[in-house]
Amino acid sequence: MTVEETLKSVIRDVPDFPKPGIIFKDITPIMLNPKVSEEILDHLVELYKDQHIDIIAGIESRGFLFGFPLAIRLGVPFVLIRKKGKLPYNKISHDYELEYGTSTIEMHVDAVKPGQRVLIHDDLLATGGSAAAAAHLIRKCGGEIAGFNFLVGLDFLEGKTKLKEFSNNIINLATY
Amino acid sequence: MTVEETLKSVIRDVPDFPKPGIIFKDITPIMLNPKVSEEILDHLVELYKDQHIDIIAGIESRGFLFGFPLAIRLGVPFVLIRKKGKLPYNKISHDYELEYGTSTIEMHVDAVKPGQRVLIHDDLLATGGSAAAAAHLIRKCGGEIAGFNFLVGLDFLEGKTKLKEFSNNIINLATY
Repeated sequence: MTVEETLKSVIRDVPDFPKPGIIFKDITPIMLNPKVSEEILDHLVELYKDQHIDIIAGIESRGFLFGFPLAIRLGVPFVLIRKKGKLPYNKISHDYELEYGTSTIEMHVDAVKPGQRVLIHDDLLATGGSAAAAAHLIRKCGGEIAGFNFLVGLDFLEGKTKLKEFSNNIINLATY
Repeated sequence: MTVEETLKSVIRDVPDFPKPGIIFKDITPIMLNPKVSEEILDHLVELYKDQHIDIIAGIESRGFLFGFPLAIRLGVPFVLIRKKGKLPYNKISHDYELEYGTSTIEMHVDAVKPGQRVLIHDDLLATGGSAAAAAHLIRKCGGEIAGFNFLVGLDFLEGKTKLKEFSNNIINLATY
C-alpha cells in the first residue's frame, strides 16, 4: 500500500460532525496505530530531509501531533502556533475569517528568526484559513514560507488556492 | 547535566500569566531546541520501556507534544484526551472542578480497551485536576492506570496527593 492508501484505510468518516451535513475526517485512529504512525513519520522525514527546512510550525492542536516528532527527526526547532490567549510570553497575532465570525492565532515573537525557512504543518487542509494565518504570522517575524504540509487535504474546498500566495510547495499525504 | 537540570535551563518563567501573581512555567523553549527535545524523549523511553505500558493517553494540547512521539518510540497506541466538543466520534466524558467553575474532558469510547495499562502524560502537574479526570475516563473504559508522567511538577500545589488514589507511579522530570 502507498502511504495515501494506508492513511485512507485508517481515517474514519464521522457523519454530521461538527454539524449536520458535514462528513468529518477523524484522524485519531492513526495515533492508535503505532505502525502506521511510524510509517507516516518516516515518509515525512524522507519528503523534507533535503528541503533545507530550518524550523517547523505546528498549528494547535492536531498540528502538534506529527509536527513535533518530525521536527525532532529532522533536528530542527518546533514552533507552537496557538489560539488566542494560550501562549504565555510576548507574542504576535493574526486575525482571520471563519465561516461565521473571526478567529485569532498567536506565536511567540522570538520563535522564528528573520530569514528562517519555515514548514507549516497541520493535520488537515480545508479552506486554508488557519494555514494562511500562520503564514502571515511567520512573515511578520521575517520568516520565509518553505512550504505547507498536511496529512489530509479536502480538495473540493480549494485551500491550496489560498496558500499559493505564500508557497507552491503544498503537500497533502492523502487527498479527498 | 541531569535531564532535570537541562529542562530547568530551558524552561522560561513568565510572571503574571495567566493572571497577576502567578509565575507560569513556559515549556515552549524546549520544543525550539531539538537536541534537548531528543534528550527528553530518549530519557522517557528509558523510563517506560520496561514498564509494560499498553497505551499512552495525552491531555490536550501540550500533552500531545511528548506523549505521541513517546508512544511511537515505545510502539504503543496514543489516545487523545480533549476538551469538550473537540472529538468527533462516540465518546465518554468526565467533569472536574477548576478554581472557578467546572471543566469537561472527553475520550473516544473505543480508544482504551478493558485491562489495558495506560500511562497518562501531560506537560505539567499543578493541582492534578485534569490528570485525575483523565484517570476517571480511562477507568470508565476498563483501563488500568499504569502511571502518570509530567515534564514539570509544581510540588507546592500537591497534585500528587490527588493522583495517588489511581497510581503511585507518578514521575515529573523536573520539580519546582
